[in-house]
Amino acid sequence: MDIITLSHGSGGKSTHDLIKKIFYKYFHNEILLQQGDSGIVDKLNGKIAITTDSYVIKPLFFQGGDIGKLSICGTVNDLAVSGARPLYISVGFIIEEGMKISELERIVESMAKTAESCNVKIVTGDSKVVERGKGDKLYINTAGVGIVENSFDISGRSINEGDKIIVNGTLGDHGITILCEREELNFKTQIESDCNALYPLVQDILSVTKKVKFMRDITRGGLATILNEIIKERKLGVVLKENSIPVNDEVNVVCEMLGFNPLFIANEGKLVVVVSKEEAHDVLRIMRSNPLGKNAAIIGEVIQDNAEKVYLNTKIHGTRILGMLEDDLIPRIC
Amino acid sequence: MDIITLSHGSGGKSTHDLIKKIFYKYFHNEILLQQGDSGIVDKLNGKIAITTDSYVIKPLFFQGGDIGKLSICGTVNDLAVSGARPLYISVGFIIEEGMKISELERIVESMAKTAESCNVKIVTGDSKVVERGKGDKLYINTAGVGIVENSFDISGRSINEGDKIIVNGTLGDHGITILCEREELNFKTQIESDCNALYPLVQDILSVTKKVKFMRDITRGGLATILNEIIKERKLGVVLKENSIPVNDEVNVVCEMLGFNPLFIANEGKLVVVVSKEEAHDVLRIMRSNPLGKNAAIIGEVIQDNAEKVYLNTKIHGTRILGMLEDDLIPRIC
Repeated sequence: MDIITLSHGSGGKSTHDLIKKIFYKYFHNEILLQQGDSGIVDKLNGKIAITTDSYVIKPLFFQGGDIGKLSICGTVNDLAVSGARPLYISVGFIIEEGMKISELERIVESMAKTAESCNVKIVTGDSKVVERGKGDKLYINTAGVGIVENSFDISGRSINEGDKIIVNGTLGDHGITILCEREELNFKTQIESDCNALYPLVQDILSVTKKVKFMRDITRGGLATILNEIIKERKLGVVLKENSIPVNDEVNVVCEMLGFNPLFIANEGKLVVVVSKEEAHDVLRIMRSNPLGKNAAIIGEVIQDNAEKVYLNTKIHGTRILGMLEDDLIPRIC
Repeated sequence: MDIITLSHGSGGKSTHDLIKKIFYKYFHNEILLQQGDSGIVDKLNGKIAITTDSYVIKPLFFQGGDIGKLSICGTVNDLAVSGARPLYISVGFIIEEGMKISELERIVESMAKTAESCNVKIVTGDSKVVERGKGDKLYINTAGVGIVENSFDISGRSINEGDKIIVNGTLGDHGITILCEREELNFKTQIESDCNALYPLVQDILSVTKKVKFMRDITRGGLATILNEIIKERKLGVVLKENSIPVNDEVNVVCEMLGFNPLFIANEGKLVVVVSKEEAHDVLRIMRSNPLGKNAAIIGEVIQDNAEKVYLNTKIHGTRILGMLEDDLIPRIC
């Protein structure tokens, strides 16, 4: 058996072989190996966070990661920025007939390795096979369950004038990596995806303050879209200083060539955190002491603004308004 | 806006419009409307069951249901047969560019209606868009979280000689419905999918006995595949009486015409339960008193058998061995 056939999706013998030889080979913990229709886990002594994401990224393998690593990190990050400790992951594979089993195996191995490094357990799963031309090798869904360790209003409704906007490092690395690796472009660069699990950094932030006003990982839509979301219907605005926003030189070059703005590009290891100005420097300091935040920066602040806009003070002393992302710059980025 | 474009997957303005106008229109509860990266739910006072399934069924709409109803029922059933009360659902959509938004809306409405009827809340979600020819209109993943109310060994390791095999009704309805509705076949029948949420029936069963030895909803692979799984490496066998197995007449006709066996066909509202012979009749009685089990029947029993086979005593007094499903009879059945 070296390619996926429709029989692997039948629920019969081939499905069981695939589960044993590929999935159980790498995902093995006492919960998954109960082999029931559900994974049964111990009682959690607190509120519970539940999240999900499907991953349709193309190509499956890229500088800095692959769809497997991404599918664990992305879901772990969604739990982490909600103040939860990531614990359990469910995995659903939608595989296109004809996919090489060796490629699937590399991805499953990467998921297992990433899950281990994040201290999360893959407790239940599912795989389906679709006919050739009805998929694109592999789509993965993961759902995550975590225990809420730190409660803050995840809606961002406590944001006020004067609050500071902090990011943990350079923006745009993931999106531009994927763009450059697409067959149609194939730019050669040193850029790699920032794909990473951010829970340790979030823990550091929450060790300094329990009064985080908003935290989110900066994925599709980019930072500009998130900032637009949180000020909407709040009579608030945001002023960003372009000079303060960390962006890799190569990312800047590619963005300038193609007319992109890193503030609209997806990341997979970056977060934005909003805190009061009193706490901003302590938060920045601890972020910078963590390798995941070594290039952290305060990049702007919240203002009162009836127009509810995000303003960018540019390097050449102009001001630009940044709306939400309008079109899909780079489809299937995650 | 009447068809899905790649922009709906950008994470920007079109994505937000889609979320507001379609997803939040039907899925609205206080948890989802926190609009965070995770849904935060209250502490659960017991063990937790987690499950997931992706749904790639074709066609999206069929007699007795649609992919939306299926995606809720299927996941609710996986929790129910694990002894858990289904509580929370996550939803991930993978949408093909060009899908009619009106079709998506019908499906989302169906999910919301089904979730309400099952008393489960859709607490978090995600949507991705893939290019034309990289999907097939719509794939849905749901993950489910429930609280374990009844602990039994879900692995089936407590099954013994003499135990009785019970099903809650006619086998094969779902699979044969889907087969008949495929464009390539287009048989006209009265058959409809049994797609249904089984939690109320499971509650009835568990009100009679806490010593259920095994329970599973009978989906891909059919009953025969499940029974093969549970006797494997146990020195046990199963003897089924074909005369006792409930099958709709029309399903029988289609199966005979095409050379299929209903024991290998997928269902979406059927379960198999294994109990001791002492408890079998009480369990059967309560199952029959529930509309979801009105055609329930004891269809066979567990025997000692070094060969570890499933035997079918046929209507014509022969014996057939039923292995696991070998090939995919009907791809994309769920």
